[in-house]
Amino acid sequence: TRLGEDWIFLVLLGITMALVSWTMDYASAKSLQGSGIPELKTILRGVVLKEYLTLKAFIAKVIGLTAALGSGMPVGKEGPFVHIASICAAVLSRFMSFFSGVYQNPYCYTDILTVGCAVGVGCCFGTPLGGVLFSIEVTSTYFAVRNYWRGYFAATFSAFIFRVLSVFNKDAVTITALFRTNFRMDFPFDLQELPAFAIIGISCGFLGAFFVYLNRQVVLFMRRPNTMTRFLMKYRLVFPATVTVVIATLTFPPGFGQFMAGELMPRECINSLFDNFTWTKMSGSPPPVGLGRSTAWLHPDVSVFIILLLFFLMKFWMSAVATTMPIPSGAFMPVFILGAAFGRLVGEIMATLFPHGILFDGILYRIIPGGYAVIGAAALTGAVTHTVSTAVICFELTGQISHILPMMVAVILANMVAQGLQPSLYDSIIQVKK
Amino acid sequence: TRLGEDWIFLVLLGITMALVSWTMDYASAKSLQGSGIPELKTILRGVVLKEYLTLKAFIAKVIGLTAALGSGMPVGKEGPFVHIASICAAVLSRFMSFFSGVYQNPYCYTDILTVGCAVGVGCCFGTPLGGVLFSIEVTSTYFAVRNYWRGYFAATFSAFIFRVLSVFNKDAVTITALFRTNFRMDFPFDLQELPAFAIIGISCGFLGAFFVYLNRQVVLFMRRPNTMTRFLMKYRLVFPATVTVVIATLTFPPGFGQFMAGELMPRECINSLFDNFTWTKMSGSPPPVGLGRSTAWLHPDVSVFIILLLFFLMKFWMSAVATTMPIPSGAFMPVFILGAAFGRLVGEIMATLFPHGILFDGILYRIIPGGYAVIGAAALTGAVTHTVSTAVICFELTGQISHILPMMVAVILANMVAQGLQPSLYDSIIQVKK
Repeated sequence: TRLGEDWIFLVLLGITMALVSWTMDYASAKSLQGSGIPELKTILRGVVLKEYLTLKAFIAKVIGLTAALGSGMPVGKEGPFVHIASICAAVLSRFMSFFSGVYQNPYCYTDILTVGCAVGVGCCFGTPLGGVLFSIEVTSTYFAVRNYWRGYFAATFSAFIFRVLSVFNKDAVTITALFRTNFRMDFPFDLQELPAFAIIGISCGFLGAFFVYLNRQVVLFMRRPNTMTRFLMKYRLVFPATVTVVIATLTFPPGFGQFMAGELMPRECINSLFDNFTWTKMSGSPPPVGLGRSTAWLHPDVSVFIILLLFFLMKFWMSAVATTMPIPSGAFMPVFILGAAFGRLVGEIMATLFPHGILFDGILYRIIPGGYAVIGAAALTGAVTHTVSTAVICFELTGQISHILPMMVAVILANMVAQGLQPSLYDSIIQVKK
Repeated sequence: TRLGEDWIFLVLLGITMALVSWTMDYASAKSLQGSGIPELKTILRGVVLKEYLTLKAFIAKVIGLTAALGSGMPVGKEGPFVHIASICAAVLSRFMSFFSGVYQNPYCYTDILTVGCAVGVGCCFGTPLGGVLFSIEVTSTYFAVRNYWRGYFAATFSAFIFRVLSVFNKDAVTITALFRTNFRMDFPFDLQELPAFAIIGISCGFLGAFFVYLNRQVVLFMRRPNTMTRFLMKYRLVFPATVTVVIATLTFPPGFGQFMAGELMPRECINSLFDNFTWTKMSGSPPPVGLGRSTAWLHPDVSVFIILLLFFLMKFWMSAVATTMPIPSGAFMPVFILGAAFGRLVGEIMATLFPHGILFDGILYRIIPGGYAVIGAAALTGAVTHTVSTAVICFELTGQISHILPMMVAVILANMVAQGLQPSLYDSIIQVKK
């Protein structure tokens, strides 16, 4: 049957990709797995990791990352991009050192790597500014302002080329944001909605800390010597293959996936969570024009709340487990999607509580659940990575800055909670790898 | 006559305010004049400026700044706000040191001042993010990332209170940007417009360097010992009074001011330069609804180009001279307005060259001169202050991020030109004051 073939195809594709990815990793005989940001943080603090920034690692990581992204697992590309860009920067500086002695200076080397990080984040999403700030926050403790300027310069041109290429490729008509939102600008939100934004921020703080905890527990469990882990150590392929089969089966669209929008690719997922509709008001009626891929969230028999909640719960553990697999995998994007889903859930609840919107000056302004999703995405990524510049990345990704103040408040609250409970995901990985 | 009374009133008001401002400055017996950013830069580098951060200086600066802004001279409040916020931070930390010994730590003192700077810029315009980045760029060489977090925290809440107060004051319906623009978002600009943006960037680099040069030459001229400066040193009131009379006379709206939009307050000026109309297409026809204060730029007999050019040329030397007066005066706002006028001029020229807009995919997209004004404002302030975060301030001020990439490119080009030609305005003032 068509359905069965599909399932086998998806699982096989997933396994193949995961295996290619893992093989590249294994073949290069270096620990290229994971995001790469923790390793760069240690390098920038003066620890020498041999052969971490070589051309061989570059090739292995590029192929491995492509396969990992193609496997359909909930893994991101931000961390690996930082690693790839840093390798480019390091290799380029070694090449340039034939012509100029400046490049042999160890200070210069650190500067170049810092800029490389900024470019990696910046060109991954086309967010130069957020890229620079995010890379400063996650890699540095003290920072030279001259590198801010350089990072800004390099990241702007990389983001520029990234977006111009998509224009030449006819994906976009002009240079715009990657996940452009279209919320109303004259009255983006009412002051009475602020408590809801604060709740998103605080909840995301707890959820982010729990994500870091869960991720670390999985790694520690795999380390503990017992029959199962000894078996897994012997047959290294079993762990990624099992995880891939389980996740691919659960998200299989015609199966359980229909209750968790399984058919959506990560990019479609974000675009639909940020859309300008209110899904809870659509049950029963034919979907309006322009709803596009958001239809995946509307199940004829199951409430939107259940779908969103199921999506959030399932993706939560899936992301926490998938990012521990020995393949190049960033955690930023999966966490971003989780945050968006959580924010959207709160937004839809608000839209149900205030079905006619909020009255202000005689005009009824309806709730925009998409705005809540953007705030949730920024807050949860901020909590997991212990950074505040995720808010900047969100502005640049959505191309809208109208929610700036509530978003910054939510990100700060999320950080306050998460920083009190757990280390950042990157610090957690550094601690575990020690 | 009504006209004569008006003129006398305006000039007298201007002189009175300038004199009050100058007296406060003189009475406090400390050099509170100028922006305050250069002094803070030296303090943060370890130089002890006695009595610069006292309650006395606070009171003198607040009254002086209020009077200076009321005088109608082209001076800004950003620099003095940084000084005022730093005094608050310093005084607060002295007060807190009664309760906790942490505040007596000299490192802590530096941290607190850095955060004070960020709050100063952030609450001046309601731009927390740009405030933090701008204050980092202008005051620091090396920067502790923990202060970034703290600055972000403090500046967000100060900006939040600033904007919430304006909601309570019924100035705004909800929390929005200060100079909110309303450009079309689906197709903000075409790739063919990029050369024009680059030209704005490069020109602003030259203009910014020339502004710094002019400002320094005025200061140096006032220092050179000759009959005139000896006279001015003896009668200290003469210089500010003369400058006030000349500038107030030239910008007097029914007089020469009608050819340079003299009736507009700085805030109205920016709002009208950023508006969503094309002024060159309005000659002869009745002005459309919603044009508002922008009518000041439309003279029945004189072309918009002449008005914009005159405004730019006159305000250029006025701002350069006014910021040398011994009163609390920031240069950021005047330069921002100059840049906006220059950008608008280029935008209106583009709109005349391509009267039907730019053809793309069968649709004609018209040129948005307001977008050029935003880019010009960011580029010129960037060139004068040698910072790239003016772009961030612009996004936050306008509430629109659609022009992010061309704006960042323009700011980078402006910085490249200006940094090659002159020191930043703040470094120039430090050098001159040595």
